[in-house]
Amino acid sequence: YSARISRDMSNLIKWLVFAVVTGCIVGAASTLFSVTLKAVTGYRKAHEWIFLLLPLSGLIIVFLYEKLGKEDGGTNQVLSTVRSRDDVPILSAPLIFITTALTHLTGGSAGREGAAIQLGGSIANQLGRWIHLDEEDRHVIVMCGMSAAFSALFGTPMAAAVFALEVVSVGVMYYAALMPCMIASLVASGFAAGMGITPESFHVTDIPALTIESGLKMGVVALGCAVVSIVFCIALNGAAGLYVKWFKNKYVRVVAGACLVIAVTFMLRTNEYMGAGAELIERAVEDGQADTFAFFWKMVLTALTMRAGFRGGEIVPSFCIGATFGCVMGNLMGISPSICAACGMAAVFCGVTNCPITSILIAFEMFGFKGVSFYLIAVSISYAASGYYGLYKDQTIVYSKYKAKYVNRHTRF
Amino acid sequence: YSARISRDMSNLIKWLVFAVVTGCIVGAASTLFSVTLKAVTGYRKAHEWIFLLLPLSGLIIVFLYEKLGKEDGGTNQVLSTVRSRDDVPILSAPLIFITTALTHLTGGSAGREGAAIQLGGSIANQLGRWIHLDEEDRHVIVMCGMSAAFSALFGTPMAAAVFALEVVSVGVMYYAALMPCMIASLVASGFAAGMGITPESFHVTDIPALTIESGLKMGVVALGCAVVSIVFCIALNGAAGLYVKWFKNKYVRVVAGACLVIAVTFMLRTNEYMGAGAELIERAVEDGQADTFAFFWKMVLTALTMRAGFRGGEIVPSFCIGATFGCVMGNLMGISPSICAACGMAAVFCGVTNCPITSILIAFEMFGFKGVSFYLIAVSISYAASGYYGLYKDQTIVYSKYKAKYVNRHTRF
Repeated sequence: YSARISRDMSNLIKWLVFAVVTGCIVGAASTLFSVTLKAVTGYRKAHEWIFLLLPLSGLIIVFLYEKLGKEDGGTNQVLSTVRSRDDVPILSAPLIFITTALTHLTGGSAGREGAAIQLGGSIANQLGRWIHLDEEDRHVIVMCGMSAAFSALFGTPMAAAVFALEVVSVGVMYYAALMPCMIASLVASGFAAGMGITPESFHVTDIPALTIESGLKMGVVALGCAVVSIVFCIALNGAAGLYVKWFKNKYVRVVAGACLVIAVTFMLRTNEYMGAGAELIERAVEDGQADTFAFFWKMVLTALTMRAGFRGGEIVPSFCIGATFGCVMGNLMGISPSICAACGMAAVFCGVTNCPITSILIAFEMFGFKGVSFYLIAVSISYAASGYYGLYKDQTIVYSKYKAKYVNRHTRF
Repeated sequence: YSARISRDMSNLIKWLVFAVVTGCIVGAASTLFSVTLKAVTGYRKAHEWIFLLLPLSGLIIVFLYEKLGKEDGGTNQVLSTVRSRDDVPILSAPLIFITTALTHLTGGSAGREGAAIQLGGSIANQLGRWIHLDEEDRHVIVMCGMSAAFSALFGTPMAAAVFALEVVSVGVMYYAALMPCMIASLVASGFAAGMGITPESFHVTDIPALTIESGLKMGVVALGCAVVSIVFCIALNGAAGLYVKWFKNKYVRVVAGACLVIAVTFMLRTNEYMGAGAELIERAVEDGQADTFAFFWKMVLTALTMRAGFRGGEIVPSFCIGATFGCVMGNLMGISPSICAACGMAAVFCGVTNCPITSILIAFEMFGFKGVSFYLIAVSISYAASGYYGLYKDQTIVYSKYKAKYVNRHTRF
């Protein structure tokens, strides 16, 4: 009996220590990453001509991956590592750091959380190798790294920890990693906050009472968001298919993609779709304002940028698409556009990642707890209506979305 | 393609309707249940002599179950129904309603959420039979019923919905039921609120900043809570074993148990352990005050009451045990007893039910979002350190708590 207790206790302490160490190291790397992205975005805004260098930065990114990252599979590879189908190399970390910074510097429409997940996952995997963790413990430390990086970047420790547990196999929660991921997340977000990275948070104004009318209206908004998330997945996949079909050569492809992005941007005469789109989210949630087709153009530009070979992530763009779409729907339906933008963000995130609990928690951490009933409605309806589409082809949906039965299928694009 | 869309849409609408119907019917039943419990508790407080009738009410409860409820397996049976190992009968609903009211009327130390889950589960199962749902859909509607009843009783729709998804098989989330459970929960809690049932909520005072010191202290409190939750499970099981060994006859057993409860209560010269213990929770969380051994006596009296044959539930007592224990620990460790009481409640709940996400959500809904970092630490450490003990013998832990691997074992007491 006492042998079991001492074994369990030493296991607990082992993971507390690993989690704190992972949280510190990954937290430091992500903080640096966050600071770098802020700096290059600031530079890009001050020197608008740099946008014209988008084709050049694309060439550099493709060159780097051709030379150094042949085995790099992006965010998917991190998910596969957790399921021991693959092994994310340490080289992933500097590669994704530099290429994401280049993408943001030259104004590509891309996020940063996919990059963070790869950064955290590959650093943690390397840590696990150094301390000779066995296969199963390596999965846990990779999840810690994912959580820590996500958490340092966004300042949302709870959503970050649950995301790592939830995203790999939808319907299965890797609870063995719960405590390590929570601790690593809290440490990393504390580290980032201490270094002056302020957590992302938006102030939702004008939250109506939950009535049958407002509930039904939010249901309609959520259905719309589910459709948008399906369309976004199809657009990403469609862009990838067309690029490969038209431009066999990767260098040609990235230059063509960059030129397309530049052309669309000049046509629209706006620079607000460059980068992750935080300003669009802020305007949609805090002021309840968004252009009617902002979500559409953000979708097009993200698909064109990301699938041409640029790096970053699709999650912050999906936030942006959700927030602007929700805001427009709110104005259309006559219900507070601010809460609709917040709900739209959570709902589209849920639609493309199939992670309902994370979506609800991210809404709490970014928007506060007050609109809780609306977040619940939006996320649960979006989950049910968004089908088996998803951003990550190595994600599996373990239980059917429609029936309480085992399906274990990959997501589709 | 359009055939699939219309099939998915009709599935969505079907479940929206079922969820609203289940939410209304179960919400109404639970509201009545809640009002009844409040009335009998008020009567008990005004007429203290009624506590002496505890043996008599025990006899009636045992008689009713002997005559009408031979096949009744309590909360466990509801969990089994969701996994199609069993089928909760409709007679469960009135039986648990009456027997829980009797237990509370005569001052037994028992909760009410187990009763609510049985009430909701059996009504929803009957609804499912009437509308000829197939096996898999019946599981979903039973989960809706569980959520709706829990939600109406506590006013915590989010925790109630996630609890139904999480509790049956720990590590597997029945997301097919997410949308129906959320909607049923929201409808039921709206219904209850409309009928004047105020949601349970407590005001946590004096939340410290998360520092290394306060985080470590909270970790120690959480470890203590994990131990307490293990001891509580062992105490319940030990009481059951001793009762069966000493008193073969069920009628003799319940009378002996009632006499023991009366004897202990007279020895302690207090009536504060009667019923669910909401006052103790309130005092611990809001005023930061609790007797040093309150958690111990609540544990003893709950084990003696529940395992003698009385009805109700073990969750609210476990809240009470956690809150009073956390409060005492907080005073000992020199960290805000109020936040420690709140964390203790969530942590012990997590320890006995093995539902970490529900525990975190319940803390948000009852105490607000402000102490979030502490709830995360307390719940995740308690989950990791509480072993495979649990309140429900038909609960399975699908993935190991210590390694990222498949174990699929039943909880132990």
